[in-house]
Amino acid sequence: MNYREESLKKHAEWKGKIEIKARVPVDSRENLSLAYTPGVAEPCLAIHENVEKSFELTRRWNTVPVITDGTAVLGLGDIGPEAGMPVMEGKCALFQAFGGVDAYPLCIKSKDTEEIIRTVKLLSGSFGGVNLEDISAPRCFEIETRLKQELDIPVFHDDQHGTAIVTAAALLNALKLADKQIGEIKVVINGAGAAGIAIGKFLLSMGVKHVIMCASRGIICEGDTRVNPAQQEIAKVTNREHLTGTLADAMKGADVFIGVSVANCVTKDMVRSMAENPILFTCANPVPEILPEDAKDAGAFIVGTGSSQYPNQINNVLVFPGLFRGALDVRASTVNTEMMTAAAKGIASCVSDEELSKDYILPYAYDLRAHEAVAKAVAQAAVKSGVSKLK
Amino acid sequence: MNYREESLKKHAEWKGKIEIKARVPVDSRENLSLAYTPGVAEPCLAIHENVEKSFELTRRWNTVPVITDGTAVLGLGDIGPEAGMPVMEGKCALFQAFGGVDAYPLCIKSKDTEEIIRTVKLLSGSFGGVNLEDISAPRCFEIETRLKQELDIPVFHDDQHGTAIVTAAALLNALKLADKQIGEIKVVINGAGAAGIAIGKFLLSMGVKHVIMCASRGIICEGDTRVNPAQQEIAKVTNREHLTGTLADAMKGADVFIGVSVANCVTKDMVRSMAENPILFTCANPVPEILPEDAKDAGAFIVGTGSSQYPNQINNVLVFPGLFRGALDVRASTVNTEMMTAAAKGIASCVSDEELSKDYILPYAYDLRAHEAVAKAVAQAAVKSGVSKLK
Repeated sequence: MNYREESLKKHAEWKGKIEIKARVPVDSRENLSLAYTPGVAEPCLAIHENVEKSFELTRRWNTVPVITDGTAVLGLGDIGPEAGMPVMEGKCALFQAFGGVDAYPLCIKSKDTEEIIRTVKLLSGSFGGVNLEDISAPRCFEIETRLKQELDIPVFHDDQHGTAIVTAAALLNALKLADKQIGEIKVVINGAGAAGIAIGKFLLSMGVKHVIMCASRGIICEGDTRVNPAQQEIAKVTNREHLTGTLADAMKGADVFIGVSVANCVTKDMVRSMAENPILFTCANPVPEILPEDAKDAGAFIVGTGSSQYPNQINNVLVFPGLFRGALDVRASTVNTEMMTAAAKGIASCVSDEELSKDYILPYAYDLRAHEAVAKAVAQAAVKSGVSKLK
Repeated sequence: MNYREESLKKHAEWKGKIEIKARVPVDSRENLSLAYTPGVAEPCLAIHENVEKSFELTRRWNTVPVITDGTAVLGLGDIGPEAGMPVMEGKCALFQAFGGVDAYPLCIKSKDTEEIIRTVKLLSGSFGGVNLEDISAPRCFEIETRLKQELDIPVFHDDQHGTAIVTAAALLNALKLADKQIGEIKVVINGAGAAGIAIGKFLLSMGVKHVIMCASRGIICEGDTRVNPAQQEIAKVTNREHLTGTLADAMKGADVFIGVSVANCVTKDMVRSMAENPILFTCANPVPEILPEDAKDAGAFIVGTGSSQYPNQINNVLVFPGLFRGALDVRASTVNTEMMTAAAKGIASCVSDEELSKDYILPYAYDLRAHEAVAKAVAQAAVKSGVSKLK
């Protein structure tokens, strides 16, 4: 099937992938008086007295907007806020189907960091959490960091952390099969945008000691002022041997290659230069850094991609519905590293030792057990790390 | 039943009066590839090429946020954005039940006119229309006027125009029973806030020639600079005889009294001073300007109130679901006077000559025929007045 052509047809038929439903009857005088005036004055006053009651008396407790400025949509780049909406709506449908979260899409017609932050803050009384989506780097870092500081509800930039969490989950299971220890592996990450940097940071927090980040001009090394501030920052905690050179140089002897970059930038020879039983997650979309068949041909032990057309799809759909479900369930005030780690381990744990194989290191995106496992693990981690606001 | 106590209990049980549902299947690899990646890239690109396609390929065509800053909620006043949310959610449930419109509540944490305008504009690519709600006067005038000028989707401040439309509908049918002509009546409006001024302007557009506006200090007369700019404006087209004095002075000989003011400000003697067969719409909430039994006792011919506890509830629930349904159906670029007039006549027409009586001048709020009639009338008026963007 040509998914893109067929999808366009379907979207024209669907005319929207989500809809709003009333949860209360309004079909009589009595019912109107309870759901609307005059009865509704009482819950209004209760929230006026204690704003926390908005999490009990309205849908706020379960509501998460999917917010974009349309600057980094899929692999399509800066296509504009309205054009990002099919992705945002799709996400909202997934939020509902896999997490039971009421998510609605909001596109913001501005690329100004301060204006985007301000807009989300002004609306934050309407939500239980905030999912940022497809906002280009480096603005996405400042936007997420500031909103996390200034709001007391979970804020999550899926392109960064959703990708990092599902990649870590895939890595945990791949390492099991390769019989390698997380503290001993050398990981090369190609692509130092929002996703690459988040993966690098998260893997360090998970116990990886040797990470080398590469950008288009090659290995990123501490002190290189030609790279952007976010890259200079991550360079302080990665590549401790201060290597310089090309991606090919970086990959020599590496156990793991993670690509969130561009099509066809990895050759068979580069795969052959890696350590024994090399693991490659080639997530460039729609065409990966190296085709899985070529990587296997060159000796790859395990290959994962961003596509559903190959085994081992590394898909952040596995993360966000359950992560927000868990965070909302315990009224988490934020999404912290403990919760993200729990999510990664929760996903990995959904593949049993019996099921685990080179072609099945992650549950399928539509596996409801996986989403439930993530929700449970995240909720527990939130409580344990002291960020639950439930009494 | 004590509606307010019971409503608080119900709200705690409901935990939200609306929810989001997915309209597409996402339960398999194929379905995910159509609704989400990789297929979704194609509708994104189609909208990128022509932003109007967002009305065909996403839910935008049917989406209306209910936006408030929480400054004029019901009769409760400035209770804050989060505290307004039970009303906004209730409205969204009514939008869905009576108009099939996907409405979601957004509260804005700002009272700054420019900031509210800016926020709505920044988000406008997500919507097919905008419903403004419970924003206090005089800021609501500037906010609505500017948004109407600067956006090409329908913008409607329900507290002004919903109230004006349903009041006009009630008046049309009441005049039939009283056998009075709209061009000959004298109307007194007490309360010169958002609703009162909108009612005054709208009745003038409907053919009423003699309107007298009163505020708390009495009759508003052209040239009185003690009243606010919106009141000075309406004073130029009302009270052409330049009367001054109290509400009691204004009511002498009046055919119609419309109150959107405060409890118990009208006495039996004031009713007795009106013209033959006086019509009183006493819409102050929760306690009207004069109790219907007292007004009747003093000779009122027809009484309507804002409450569902008496006959003839003048409820703007009769307006907004059908009005937006009609406007969205024909992709209206605005809500103009022609559409509002059509809505008023549409509502009035739902009470047949056989049904029409002193205690039944308006259809019930939950009468689906009324909402359908409004939708149809508004859509036709939009097309006829040239504001439909359908080709």
